[in-house]
Formats: sequence, structure tokens, C-alpha cells
Amino acid sequence: MSKPQILSTSLVAQSRLFRIEALEMEFRDGQRATFECLRNQGDGVVMVAAVDDDALILVREYAAGFDRYELGFVKGRIDPGEMAPQTAARELGEEIGFEPGSLELLRGVTTSPGYSDFTTYLFIASGLRPCPQEGGDEIEPLEQVRWPLGRIGALYDHPEVSDARTLFLLHLLERRLAAE
Amino acid sequence: MSKPQILSTSLVAQSRLFRIEALEMEFRDGQRATFECLRNQGDGVVMVAAVDDDALILVREYAAGFDRYELGFVKGRIDPGEMAPQTAARELGEEIGFEPGSLELLRGVTTSPGYSDFTTYLFIASGLRPCPQEGGDEIEPLEQVRWPLGRIGALYDHPEVSDARTLFLLHLLERRLAAE
Repeated sequence: MSKPQILSTSLVAQSRLFRIEALEMEFRDGQRATFECLRNQGDGVVMVAAVDDDALILVREYAAGFDRYELGFVKGRIDPGEMAPQTAARELGEEIGFEPGSLELLRGVTTSPGYSDFTTYLFIASGLRPCPQEGGDEIEPLEQVRWPLGRIGALYDHPEVSDARTLFLLHLLERRLAAE
Repeated sequence: MSKPQILSTSLVAQSRLFRIEALEMEFRDGQRATFECLRNQGDGVVMVAAVDDDALILVREYAAGFDRYELGFVKGRIDPGEMAPQTAARELGEEIGFEPGSLELLRGVTTSPGYSDFTTYLFIASGLRPCPQEGGDEIEPLEQVRWPLGRIGALYDHPEVSDARTLFLLHLLERRLAAE
């Protein structure tokens, strides 16, 4: 099946974090349509499942989209010039004060591929060693939550866990732990 | 832990699909900061795992965010005045030409709760009966893919499956099938 062609791209709106573009598309049958796309600045984000002995280290962070707290994994934006594993190691230090002995990229996932080019890279970090926690871009210190590995299953139904990326990383982590 | 307070909200940019707002926030220690939030128009979307006997019915749809095709579940926006199950039934008819005998809402998930209030409601539909496929808002007819239930596991690593919501709904579906 031949792909639709992008005839032109124009800027609709730009803010500090977001850039909205309009794509003029032509489909195989000659039909044309305009698609709106959201371009996040930068190269995406990382999300890191931090495994410390028999526990996960989670963070509880204010989620402005819903005006409530969300419980999830360490995460953060890839800075210009960084590779995703560097971001993962930096965020572990900034958010929970650990450096990883081992850091494994599991895969990238998207969130709304129909209109956004945003990619999240999912990692597992283990062999954690304490390191000085140097402030990142957090406004308030993040609350850390140690969650026993034996109770991972309960996180799927935790009222503060809603992000599909977190939920799928839990699945990958469970599968990994079962295989070990 | 007391929540940060939203002092004021202002419109930064507005397009056909997106609305970007700036939130003036005050944190517990008196610090203030501005957060950008993305407000999707409407009440979110539904994603429906359509189970027909021993197969899933998937759709292969152009994903403008990445200029490629994405393989996934039937999905669509909740129209004004609709309840999520109505949207799910309508999208099944429009996208694959079936009406559900049974339709179950599993849960809602978010995608970027830090800056977006977008919610996706995940459904399983079964007992499918063919019905006339009336065009929805698709520009080209969607390609249907029948995927054997016995091979669901292979979808996690399919090169055209990247959406974290799809991947987590696969997990929920596998769990459901294992319990039956």
C-alpha cells in the first residue's frame, strides 16, 4: 500500500514546549486533506524502571494535566546533544540519587502516532549505587516510593498509576523478572 | 502532601485540534512556576480490542506523526454528547463493519499526564455481528488485519506496533484470555 504524500508543512502555533504543524497530504486516490501534528521540541523522553535489590524505586510527581499526583518511574527529556542512555543515567541521579551499574534499553514506544512524533525510550536500571542527588529541573523534591518487586502486580490497579507507558513498562519488567 | 495551587490559567495558542494553556502554579514552599498544558478538544478517545472468534481484528492506519503506517486497534474520538461505549460501538461499525454483542470497558489510561489531560478508554468487544460499514471520518478505507489470538504475543514486537496504549491493551487482553 503506497503511503500518502506530504505536499507541504506549515507552522500553526508555537509555544515554549509545543509546536503545532499543519501537513497538506495527498492520498493515493488523489484526495487531499490537512492533518495537524504536534511536534515536541527535542528528541523525546526516557522512562527508567529503577530496580534496587528487591524493590522498585518509584517517584510521585505532580501531574499538571490532571491537577493530581501520578506515581511512576523516573523520567525526563533528552537534552540536546545527549544520547538516551545518558539521559537515563542523569535522571536517575537527579530524581532519586542513584547511579546505575547496568542500564538496558528495552524499546521505544509512541503515545499518539496519528498526530505526534513523540517517542519514549523505556529502560531498566539495576546495580544501583547511591550518588549525590543534584537538582535537575524539579520545582519541588520528588517523593520517592520503594515498592516491593513481589507486589508489582498491584501497581496496575493503583489509583495514581495511569500513564500507558508506565503500565506497559510494568508489563515488560514483569516479563523480565519471570524469565530470570 | 498538599497539592500545588493553580493561581491562573491563560490561553497560549489554539488550533483546530489543540489548545495550549499556561498554568501559573504556586508550590507549598511559596515558589511559583509556569506550566504549559495541552488540552485536547473533547472528552478523549476510545480504543477497542475487537475479538472475532479466534482472531483479533486490527486496523492499519496512516500515522502522520511518523509518516508511516501503524497497526493497532479500532479507535476514535468521543463526539460531543456521546458516552464512551457509544463511541466504541460506532467506531467498530465505521472502521471494520461490525457491531458488538458484548462491549466491556476495562479502564482509562493517560499518555502524558504531566502536561496533557487526554484520556483513552480501553475496551474489549466480542460477539461481533457484521453490519453495514458506514464511512466515518477516514480519508482512505482502513486496511483490516485478522490476527490469530494464538499469536497475540508476536504483536508486542511487530515493527508497526508502537503505541503504548495498544501495547498495554494487548497485555490486558492476554491476561483476560488466560483467565478464561
